[in-house]
Amino acid sequence: MRSNGRNDDQLRPLKITTQVNKYAEGSVLIEMGDTKVICTATVEEKVPPFLKGQGKGWVTAEYSMLPRATQSRNQREAARGKLTGRTMEIQRLIGRALRSVVNLHALGERNITLDCDVIQADGGTRTASITGSFVALAFAVNKIAVQHKLSVFPITDYLAAISVGIVDDKPLLDLNYEEDSKAKVDMNVVMTGSGEFVELQGTGEERPFSRKELDYLLGLGETGVLELIAAQKEALGPIALKIPLGQAGQEV
Amino acid sequence: MRSNGRNDDQLRPLKITTQVNKYAEGSVLIEMGDTKVICTATVEEKVPPFLKGQGKGWVTAEYSMLPRATQSRNQREAARGKLTGRTMEIQRLIGRALRSVVNLHALGERNITLDCDVIQADGGTRTASITGSFVALAFAVNKIAVQHKLSVFPITDYLAAISVGIVDDKPLLDLNYEEDSKAKVDMNVVMTGSGEFVELQGTGEERPFSRKELDYLLGLGETGVLELIAAQKEALGPIALKIPLGQAGQEV
Amino acid sequence: MRSNGRNDDQLRPLKITTQVNKYAEGSVLIEMGDTKVICTATVEEKVPPFLKGQGKGWVTAEYSMLPRATQSRNQREAARGKLTGRTMEIQRLIGRALRSVVNLHALGERNITLDCDVIQADGGTRTASITGSFVALAFAVNKIAVQHKLSVFPITDYLAAISVGIVDDKPLLDLNYEEDSKAKVDMNVVMTGSGEFVELQGTGEERPFSRKELDYLLGLGETGVLELIAAQKEALGPIALKIPLGQAGQEV
Amino acid sequence: MRSNGRNDDQLRPLKITTQVNKYAEGSVLIEMGDTKVICTATVEEKVPPFLKGQGKGWVTAEYSMLPRATQSRNQREAARGKLTGRTMEIQRLIGRALRSVVNLHALGERNITLDCDVIQADGGTRTASITGSFVALAFAVNKIAVQHKLSVFPITDYLAAISVGIVDDKPLLDLNYEEDSKAKVDMNVVMTGSGEFVELQGTGEERPFSRKELDYLLGLGETGVLELIAAQKEALGPIALKIPLGQAGQEV
Amino acid sequence: MRSNGRNDDQLRPLKITTQVNKYAEGSVLIEMGDTKVICTATVEEKVPPFLKGQGKGWVTAEYSMLPRATQSRNQREAARGKLTGRTMEIQRLIGRALRSVVNLHALGERNITLDCDVIQADGGTRTASITGSFVALAFAVNKIAVQHKLSVFPITDYLAAISVGIVDDKPLLDLNYEEDSKAKVDMNVVMTGSGEFVELQGTGEERPFSRKELDYLLGLGETGVLELIAAQKEALGPIALKIPLGQAGQEV
Amino acid sequence: MRSNGRNDDQLRPLKITTQVNKYAEGSVLIEMGDTKVICTATVEEKVPPFLKGQGKGWVTAEYSMLPRATQSRNQREAARGKLTGRTMEIQRLIGRALRSVVNLHALGERNITLDCDVIQADGGTRTASITGSFVALAFAVNKIAVQHKLSVFPITDYLAAISVGIVDDKPLLDLNYEEDSKAKVDMNVVMTGSGEFVELQGTGEERPFSRKELDYLLGLGETGVLELIAAQKEALGPIALKIPLGQAGQEV
Repeated sequence: MRSNGRNDDQLRPLKITTQVNKYAEGSVLIEMGDTKVICTATVEEKVPPFLKGQGKGWVTAEYSMLPRATQSRNQREAARGKLTGRTMEIQRLIGRALRSVVNLHALGERNITLDCDVIQADGGTRTASITGSFVALAFAVNKIAVQHKLSVFPITDYLAAISVGIVDDKPLLDLNYEEDSKAKVDMNVVMTGSGEFVELQGTGEERPFSRKELDYLLGLGETGVLELIAAQKEALGPIALKIPLGQAGQEV
Repeated sequence: MRSNGRNDDQLRPLKITTQVNKYAEGSVLIEMGDTKVICTATVEEKVPPFLKGQGKGWVTAEYSMLPRATQSRNQREAARGKLTGRTMEIQRLIGRALRSVVNLHALGERNITLDCDVIQADGGTRTASITGSFVALAFAVNKIAVQHKLSVFPITDYLAAISVGIVDDKPLLDLNYEEDSKAKVDMNVVMTGSGEFVELQGTGEERPFSRKELDYLLGLGETGVLELIAAQKEALGPIALKIPLGQAGQEV
Repeated sequence: MRSNGRNDDQLRPLKITTQVNKYAEGSVLIEMGDTKVICTATVEEKVPPFLKGQGKGWVTAEYSMLPRATQSRNQREAARGKLTGRTMEIQRLIGRALRSVVNLHALGERNITLDCDVIQADGGTRTASITGSFVALAFAVNKIAVQHKLSVFPITDYLAAISVGIVDDKPLLDLNYEEDSKAKVDMNVVMTGSGEFVELQGTGEERPFSRKELDYLLGLGETGVLELIAAQKEALGPIALKIPLGQAGQEV
Repeated sequence: MRSNGRNDDQLRPLKITTQVNKYAEGSVLIEMGDTKVICTATVEEKVPPFLKGQGKGWVTAEYSMLPRATQSRNQREAARGKLTGRTMEIQRLIGRALRSVVNLHALGERNITLDCDVIQADGGTRTASITGSFVALAFAVNKIAVQHKLSVFPITDYLAAISVGIVDDKPLLDLNYEEDSKAKVDMNVVMTGSGEFVELQGTGEERPFSRKELDYLLGLGETGVLELIAAQKEALGPIALKIPLGQAGQEV
Repeated sequence: MRSNGRNDDQLRPLKITTQVNKYAEGSVLIEMGDTKVICTATVEEKVPPFLKGQGKGWVTAEYSMLPRATQSRNQREAARGKLTGRTMEIQRLIGRALRSVVNLHALGERNITLDCDVIQADGGTRTASITGSFVALAFAVNKIAVQHKLSVFPITDYLAAISVGIVDDKPLLDLNYEEDSKAKVDMNVVMTGSGEFVELQGTGEERPFSRKELDYLLGLGETGVLELIAAQKEALGPIALKIPLGQAGQEV
Repeated sequence: MRSNGRNDDQLRPLKITTQVNKYAEGSVLIEMGDTKVICTATVEEKVPPFLKGQGKGWVTAEYSMLPRATQSRNQREAARGKLTGRTMEIQRLIGRALRSVVNLHALGERNITLDCDVIQADGGTRTASITGSFVALAFAVNKIAVQHKLSVFPITDYLAAISVGIVDDKPLLDLNYEEDSKAKVDMNVVMTGSGEFVELQGTGEERPFSRKELDYLLGLGETGVLELIAAQKEALGPIALKIPLGQAGQEV
């Protein structure tokens, strides 16, 4: 039996609170069980140097955990003077995933930064960051679209992410920290509303995994992502209608 | 007229929510108007090298702002690779102020770190950090006192802080960001429950200030601190009874 | 038609030269087409602090490119004063993958560092680093096993890695730089001799990918890895016999 | 009895030597007892980016101690790779204080950097730095005023600083290191020639302090500052006549 | 007797392999005994800021050792976050020496960076870097001269470097690591084809050295440099004819 | 004619003031013309990790320039966050040179750090640092020798350094900044009282130099060093008698 009496293919209680920051162009507090992440979207009317004059925009992300987001306190990266490899890996993933559903030309020469700050961590912080950031991003993009009367809405599909893994030889959806630390295989699945993959990162932490196990885990991931996208739509309200939902996703 | 219709000697709406973090030994979300700070206290059963073997403990603080806590986004200090002078100044102030009301010998060889993370900033973040941290600290100290059956409660008095300043030649209590940026004189007052000063930092930003103005500002500060301490007591519930309240404070 | 007249499922010319460094416990120059990586294995009779006294060893990796390994010169990370996120991601991947086929208890309290220095880069440097490092690691482990008369050979299976991707809607094996920069989907596959997955990292750079596409790409990856393992065996000579080859791998 | 037979309200022997550097636009060696600081003023015909095109100038300061300025050797900040919080706090204070008596518009688009390098430290280095820097600044400003025929002399008042504190329950003026390390309360007072406050930083190091104690300490500070300003005038010679002395100051 | 049966005034086996990198404008693998260095020359059509608009170019160098180039593994400078003093000293020396035989005006506003990466170190890496870099530089300069039809060939003379030293009171040419670590006196000699000195760095590691000893060592150095220059000419093939050989050098 | 009417083989006015710092075990202000350097020696009763338990001591040096020691202001290395290559090169040179005349076994397990802080720079700061540091070192060593009743005085010879160079084809002794910046050849000579070389660093900045020129420059250097050693003896007073003066030096 899983803690909290969850089924193997069941998400933790999910809550997306919007507009949690009075300055940001989009902001969200996403809670998945005891994992809590504040995602804010900041719009700037300029692009990074490597994109100047190309008529397209950029979306990037930064990720951080408060020192006591975890069981024992972690030293601040600002105090260490540099980012850990884990942080870099995660923020590169978030940015890359979000960009895959943004039409950067339609966005125009603008930069959107998603800040994902983990207030409390209980496993799945990177996937919660992606899922929450998508909503904050959509609010910010909508603000731009309205203000600048964009003819094309720059978001091309929904995007959400979830972790799956094999614990005690059982494939599980949405691992919390305790499950994650015992997982033999660990996988993060980032998918669109069309049911296609944007990013797949599977690691055989304790043992390699077979093609058959992979197939089962991907199925679990799909289930979870669809549920997350339903919650995103609800959080977005009328804005949800502006985001195209890929065919595959509709079918399910 | 002040924004929100406040009187010159009136605090912004104040809210102290306790136990906001499931891991920390003490935690508080303090809101003063639109300024919101999460304060967590972490207890470690060891002291910094310079205190080893002296039979006394230590209290220290770290301070940070989320990048979009402010009107426009600030670069993360972790990304810059170093703390700004402002951050260092603030976290040194918070630690120094808290230590002034802790009996470090009674605490024993333990280290308590207060993390003050500003979720949203609208002026007065350093004073809110001190006021909120005191409550988080008291929860953590109480946990130690109960668990280790300390004979003396290691907190010696209440402690709170508030900003005062001169805006358009009017002395005001508890400046928000807009007022702060127009202030000619700016002062942070840290006081104990006994009504004595622990720290006083006054700056003539735009013009020097006279002894008479100083006196008036200190009076405003006293008023504010007493109100804050009342709120701290309420937030602490039964623990409040374990903290001695200095005589001066009782008189008021 | 691919450059060099390669078939879609064909590796580039592969060459593994062993013992290229007179000091290292194991060393290899791996060439896959124009990609050239020197991999050295360094054995130290001590483990990182977090493993002290647990009777087990550690395997870690570092990755770097010479400044002119690429078309245009890159600034040295030593001159910048910090590692890029890309480097951190890659060296974490190499270390994690190698550890998955090492019996750390059998290794004993020793640390092995694999240094992967890219002399020339033409795509696939991270997968070449894994494939080459495995050989350097096996030499180093064999030296330990012989010298300390280990009863169990600490390597549990073969390990190799290859990239696959979708370019112009065609799935290709072992992308060179030109193909990689046009790839819509990009995937790195790390597999054991048993044909199971150790790490799977797929990214929809330009568009998401379907389950069917994923399946096809994994098949391509399997083909490539088996060929790489054959080359590793040849390079290892008699040491190859000491490494168990998983059943699945034998079947294929 | 104080060391050197000083009275409680008596400054240490004070000596201001001018023109100690053949390159700087203004330079001073200030000695207060055994505390010795070289202050140089450097003028640059450009302003920091945030002030460009606003027709006004800037004054900033840097502070450092030679490694063996103190009883035991301190590691160089250049070797540590970053400034300590103490240094940042001090140099921010010096710059802020000096700017309060400079008419930045009258200065024009120029930057003046005050470098305060402590050759030997025996308490009160930050206040000596302010007092000495003011003189170096006045020399540099005078050079600008003469060369560019400024119609308004850009310095608006005198400025000096002194420390006061409570040692063994006695309020003392101008603490040396030994006194400072025993002080229960420690305060730095920065005042203008008009007798008004520019900066006030009081800390209850060992115990809080009352309003009455504060009043007494401020009186001591005033006494000291006036004496320092008299010495500044003498050091400045004919330039002294160009600096307006506020009314309050004249009265005393 | 020296290891490998060398005479006291005999170089180690020398091998210069050209065009070892398919991207660089010039590249060389230089081997002196077991010391192996890859030198690449990168041409950029811009100069550092301090040279902008002066109609002249620049030549600079960077130096690094692979972690396991040496007997025991060295930490990467990129991981330490900064260059060692030794590395800085060496790369400044290489750049300065090369510039002494380049007509920077004839080169035009271009920057050439020489990257010297030590693959294996057995003494004399800095002198091998200079000797090898000169060849890589000549290839790169020739490419520029041909492409831009320069009227003057920008290289003014040959340049090579060698180490000499006193080991067990015997002066030796071209010390390997073992000899170098026992040397009482150690000297690096950088000379032109004209037989004149460009750089001379002699250190009495264990004892001072007399004028007479210096004279003898300089003679040894001359011998070695002439042999190195002969090898450079061979490696350069027809390009060798474009480089003037100073008179003194021709005489010998 | 040289500025100040100096002859080509004449030193600038030299002044060595001792005991300029009340805390350091040895301290000196050395002035050579307008070049002024404070040298302090700090003794610590411990050695660096690599020397622990070997019964011998260590001597090391650090070098820095005040920001306005030069014509135009230089950024502080502490503000840049790292040492320049020039600083590293110089401080390595000073330490190496001083160690050559110290019997580290006789010194015992102690570390002496020489801090050379350039107050004003007009050429020759590194050689003045060596010459001044030797005197500060001798004071510190004498203090140790007396206090610990060492049987052997740990300094084995005198040590001083001077620059020579070729300006407008004339060899000159002791170049000031103006001469140095026009020098075609520049050389630093570090010699013992015995007239032998400890370090020789010659650079053909603008053109290579011949053996004949080298010989002439070394002669100039010898002359200068002997004069410097005479001044060191005077500054050391009775301590001078404890330092053996090599035979060669006595002869001249």
